[in-house]
Amino acid sequence: MNDIRAGVYGGSGYAGMDLVEILATHPRVDLRFATSNTYAGESVPGTDLRYAPTADVCPGDVDVIFLALPHKTSATVAKLGLDAGVKVVDLSADLRLDTPEAYERSYHTPHPHPELLPAPYGLPEINRDELADINVVATPGCYPTTTLLGLYPLLKLDALRDDAPIIVDAKSGVTGAGRKPSLTTHFAEVYSNLIPYKTGRAHRHVGELEQEALKLSDAIGPIIFCPHLLPVDRGLMSSIYVTLNDTMTSDQAHDAYLEVYGGEALVVVLPLGEQATLKHAVKTNKCVISITPVLDRYAHITSVTDNLRKGAASQAVQNMNLMFGLDETMGLLS
Amino acid sequence: MNDIRAGVYGGSGYAGMDLVEILATHPRVDLRFATSNTYAGESVPGTDLRYAPTADVCPGDVDVIFLALPHKTSATVAKLGLDAGVKVVDLSADLRLDTPEAYERSYHTPHPHPELLPAPYGLPEINRDELADINVVATPGCYPTTTLLGLYPLLKLDALRDDAPIIVDAKSGVTGAGRKPSLTTHFAEVYSNLIPYKTGRAHRHVGELEQEALKLSDAIGPIIFCPHLLPVDRGLMSSIYVTLNDTMTSDQAHDAYLEVYGGEALVVVLPLGEQATLKHAVKTNKCVISITPVLDRYAHITSVTDNLRKGAASQAVQNMNLMFGLDETMGLLS
Amino acid sequence: MNDIRAGVYGGSGYAGMDLVEILATHPRVDLRFATSNTYAGESVPGTDLRYAPTADVCPGDVDVIFLALPHKTSATVAKLGLDAGVKVVDLSADLRLDTPEAYERSYHTPHPHPELLPAPYGLPEINRDELADINVVATPGCYPTTTLLGLYPLLKLDALRDDAPIIVDAKSGVTGAGRKPSLTTHFAEVYSNLIPYKTGRAHRHVGELEQEALKLSDAIGPIIFCPHLLPVDRGLMSSIYVTLNDTMTSDQAHDAYLEVYGGEALVVVLPLGEQATLKHAVKTNKCVISITPVLDRYAHITSVTDNLRKGAASQAVQNMNLMFGLDETMGLLS
Amino acid sequence: MNDIRAGVYGGSGYAGMDLVEILATHPRVDLRFATSNTYAGESVPGTDLRYAPTADVCPGDVDVIFLALPHKTSATVAKLGLDAGVKVVDLSADLRLDTPEAYERSYHTPHPHPELLPAPYGLPEINRDELADINVVATPGCYPTTTLLGLYPLLKLDALRDDAPIIVDAKSGVTGAGRKPSLTTHFAEVYSNLIPYKTGRAHRHVGELEQEALKLSDAIGPIIFCPHLLPVDRGLMSSIYVTLNDTMTSDQAHDAYLEVYGGEALVVVLPLGEQATLKHAVKTNKCVISITPVLDRYAHITSVTDNLRKGAASQAVQNMNLMFGLDETMGLLS
Repeated sequence: MNDIRAGVYGGSGYAGMDLVEILATHPRVDLRFATSNTYAGESVPGTDLRYAPTADVCPGDVDVIFLALPHKTSATVAKLGLDAGVKVVDLSADLRLDTPEAYERSYHTPHPHPELLPAPYGLPEINRDELADINVVATPGCYPTTTLLGLYPLLKLDALRDDAPIIVDAKSGVTGAGRKPSLTTHFAEVYSNLIPYKTGRAHRHVGELEQEALKLSDAIGPIIFCPHLLPVDRGLMSSIYVTLNDTMTSDQAHDAYLEVYGGEALVVVLPLGEQATLKHAVKTNKCVISITPVLDRYAHITSVTDNLRKGAASQAVQNMNLMFGLDETMGLLS
Repeated sequence: MNDIRAGVYGGSGYAGMDLVEILATHPRVDLRFATSNTYAGESVPGTDLRYAPTADVCPGDVDVIFLALPHKTSATVAKLGLDAGVKVVDLSADLRLDTPEAYERSYHTPHPHPELLPAPYGLPEINRDELADINVVATPGCYPTTTLLGLYPLLKLDALRDDAPIIVDAKSGVTGAGRKPSLTTHFAEVYSNLIPYKTGRAHRHVGELEQEALKLSDAIGPIIFCPHLLPVDRGLMSSIYVTLNDTMTSDQAHDAYLEVYGGEALVVVLPLGEQATLKHAVKTNKCVISITPVLDRYAHITSVTDNLRKGAASQAVQNMNLMFGLDETMGLLS
Repeated sequence: MNDIRAGVYGGSGYAGMDLVEILATHPRVDLRFATSNTYAGESVPGTDLRYAPTADVCPGDVDVIFLALPHKTSATVAKLGLDAGVKVVDLSADLRLDTPEAYERSYHTPHPHPELLPAPYGLPEINRDELADINVVATPGCYPTTTLLGLYPLLKLDALRDDAPIIVDAKSGVTGAGRKPSLTTHFAEVYSNLIPYKTGRAHRHVGELEQEALKLSDAIGPIIFCPHLLPVDRGLMSSIYVTLNDTMTSDQAHDAYLEVYGGEALVVVLPLGEQATLKHAVKTNKCVISITPVLDRYAHITSVTDNLRKGAASQAVQNMNLMFGLDETMGLLS
Repeated sequence: MNDIRAGVYGGSGYAGMDLVEILATHPRVDLRFATSNTYAGESVPGTDLRYAPTADVCPGDVDVIFLALPHKTSATVAKLGLDAGVKVVDLSADLRLDTPEAYERSYHTPHPHPELLPAPYGLPEINRDELADINVVATPGCYPTTTLLGLYPLLKLDALRDDAPIIVDAKSGVTGAGRKPSLTTHFAEVYSNLIPYKTGRAHRHVGELEQEALKLSDAIGPIIFCPHLLPVDRGLMSSIYVTLNDTMTSDQAHDAYLEVYGGEALVVVLPLGEQATLKHAVKTNKCVISITPVLDRYAHITSVTDNLRKGAASQAVQNMNLMFGLDETMGLLS
């Protein structure tokens, strides 16, 4: 009963390839096309398809399109799809910020389709109620997903001190930088290295992180976000350091995580004393979290995902499942 | 004029091998022996020596001994050496803490030679005045060296808020875990992984870090220290997050680092805007530091060393140079 | 209908863990136990079981036992299982050689149960007719599986010159060396390195390779086998260089491979001009082969597997499927 | 006495950077410029220079120029230099083949300056007599250097069977593919992979290898050359398989290597039974060779270099030393 016709734009990037892999075995999806201008004509791994140039496919031929495209391009295709009555799962940054002004602040370019904002933010464990019966969803990327899930219980419970910063020391595998060749992703530059970049508040995900965190708790300190390029292909770890307010001591935090995430299939909270490592999440569709109390008032949270799965492709499919009223984890649990 | 006869205990571990490599070309050193019970009889790389069993060498035959031994064993050999009138450069943890009580708190075992405490703490950039004309020195290891050098200017200037924690998210190459085989260092366990361990305040270097930091500034918050095992062989990065007090704004911090480290040959402060990466330090004898102001009151400091060099072997030689009244960087600049 | 009760001996080694992973989702298998003396009591990943000490399980409680044990130990458990009427899938070397003499030549120790020899050799693509209705099977390891599949069409067709050597330059990921810690598998020794070992005819798989090759073609030259330890966790590549006799020119070889492997689900022959890379096989249950004609008489064959899958665990399950009369690929195609 | 003024063209590629590093500490060299169009204006690591655009430097201002340039471009600059009376050390392929016809066969483009052919082939251990008092030298690259040094004693002694192929299974670190970004060198494509390419006789170094081998021995079989991209940054291993003729048995081969290379400072022949590994050569200026007799007539030779040193930059300096009548290893032994 593969009755949901789907198309993937940007199917030859790393997130696009994982998306194709997941959709190819999804019990309800009939994958009709995957686009790639660079690899047009080559066979799409794991399918009988060949990559089509973007110009050769028509969004209206399917029921849902996934956009694993560069920002700015993505919004344009999203608009086309919506106009054609097709559901749109966007994996780019184009629909993640609520206002054109916020977008321009982070991306230094005017938003190509301000009329699409705000769009529902697709992080189901936090706001799944907003994700049913919608036509378009902004799927958050790897850094915000991993970080927000790592913080969510404390934000939801308003447990953070509002005058202390939230410190996020994040480490990402190289696929997070995309497949387009550049010196940054050259093997010999990354190998045996560890490279911090855009640290402090310079990375464009800081705006998105604060936008979403503030929806959950209005009394928080600034987010300090320092990403690092890690010499591995996949996996993302956010190491989060927070200061608790008087509502909770640090040894109560773990219970809060267990309670908030108790019913979640795709978030795992490790037992107290066990540390989340990158391998806990790589090649899975889950976010794995450990939390360590430090003295009375501090906590160290380790949140890990596969940057191409829960940080991109599998979360996109999770959003699609919700949009179509399917079981949220369909095709996502092996 | 290789007139300083030297011996290395524990010459087949990773730090011991780097130590041998440095001493073998030091213009004043005559390397007489390197011990290894495991590799006894095998040739010592880069020299004409063969590894000697510990029992076959005599500290009194040389002018200085370097101890790259496990803790507890090290203090015992240090004692023998000192009794024989030989200078002792200890690379173990045995002489780093000032009191037997502090040692027992961190290492959960009584100190084997409490009469040796306190010993001079060999971090020359911080306390080189205390390192001339001494007979024994405790060389700090990779985490404390890298972290303390990253914090030193702010501690010296009493620029940190005393009610905010000092957060150290540290990442170490696998040689930091020693050469003795274990599942922890098995290639297949480390590869493609990133493993936090003993996070919060559980690692035994926390006591040493706070002991030394408090000597420099008595008004600091607690240190939160989260080390990670990084899938590379060498290199250590301490990512440090601090909150400044009213004596300094974050955009003044970089100048403070330039001033404090202006005359140092083995500490490099990068220009503002440039990030220290692991490769800046690997296979060098230097500590490389970058500092990023974040808002008015916060700073992100990246401090990197080669864990086997400035974090162990080359710092030991730097200490030896001071003890013998030589140029501090002799044999350490290529 | 999980009606085949199975037990895994040696379930905490790398091959054992992959075996458990495959059996846990096999549609007919009910995994009853996994043994591990080292990790007894710890939970078995991907299951609800805990590792049992070997002494606590009883082979007679299940229908089939898988032995991922060290050689010598394995034959003893195999004997126990067979005596109890249980089917035995051995992954060790104990049952691979046809005579006790051959075993002693390769393993330098008397065979513990010579009465078990010869046992059926479980390489289904080559001899599946011998694998139905049997009680015990010797599953070949990664080097012989990958190499023999790479050579099979040419051996079957008697296409090799009998006076030219068969050269096998093989490269294995580190899991092939087992999970027991040793300096050989220490991260820092393997990383950035490539290590040939036991080259020429010194490796103990040479006897097994020649035994099986000679069953297929009695006119072949000696096998020269040079394995290398590759700095990756998984994957095995055999690069094979052969000289053809007058029955075939090198440009006819590719067709021979296509024909011989035409009906195989778990062997992929790449189109002419495409090279098999390690990633073609990693985390799959397949052997992937490319063949390049060189001048008239030579061929270069690249054969790759995942050393823990088609080179161990998945081939063991493939053999079990045949022994129980199931579809040979049950549980092995995703 | 840094009296030899030198310039490096292509100083920001990987070979160029190693070349700059070596020249910067060479006791007779005064490095005047390093060109890079891509990084023009940026500082040249390890020097006080800044990269100059090619158009801004003048070959006539120095005594020797090193050309680490793409082929075709290199010959043009070589011509300019020679016309200006400057000595030229070429690291490109442009001057390695003896005739324009051979060049066109391998590089599929007409030679830009056929009048420069043939040029002396700069592999000093093989033909150092031809390298004194010359104005231009073609420095062979990593594959030919490593392979020819691995074969040289057997070629020189005419010890190979003329009807058996010389099989070279070679593995190269990623810096061998150059610094220009491409999908081939993208971290995520190379990591955890092993990639054969241009195998058989398709690689353009086959012509050069046979040209030079035939100068040493006119009775050899064809060379079969299969290079692989190895997931490490540096290092090259040629695994060579040969068949000996009646003049030598395989157990005599090791002695032949010891004798031929007895006086060489930059070639190390390991003791019989010890295998050369990649790490033997990485970050050194040496070629390290092990040889294993196999049966009576076969030998397996492992020859390793650092592809950027003895396979490029340090060999270029070795050639310069010879051209200027200096000690051949000046600046090359630490």
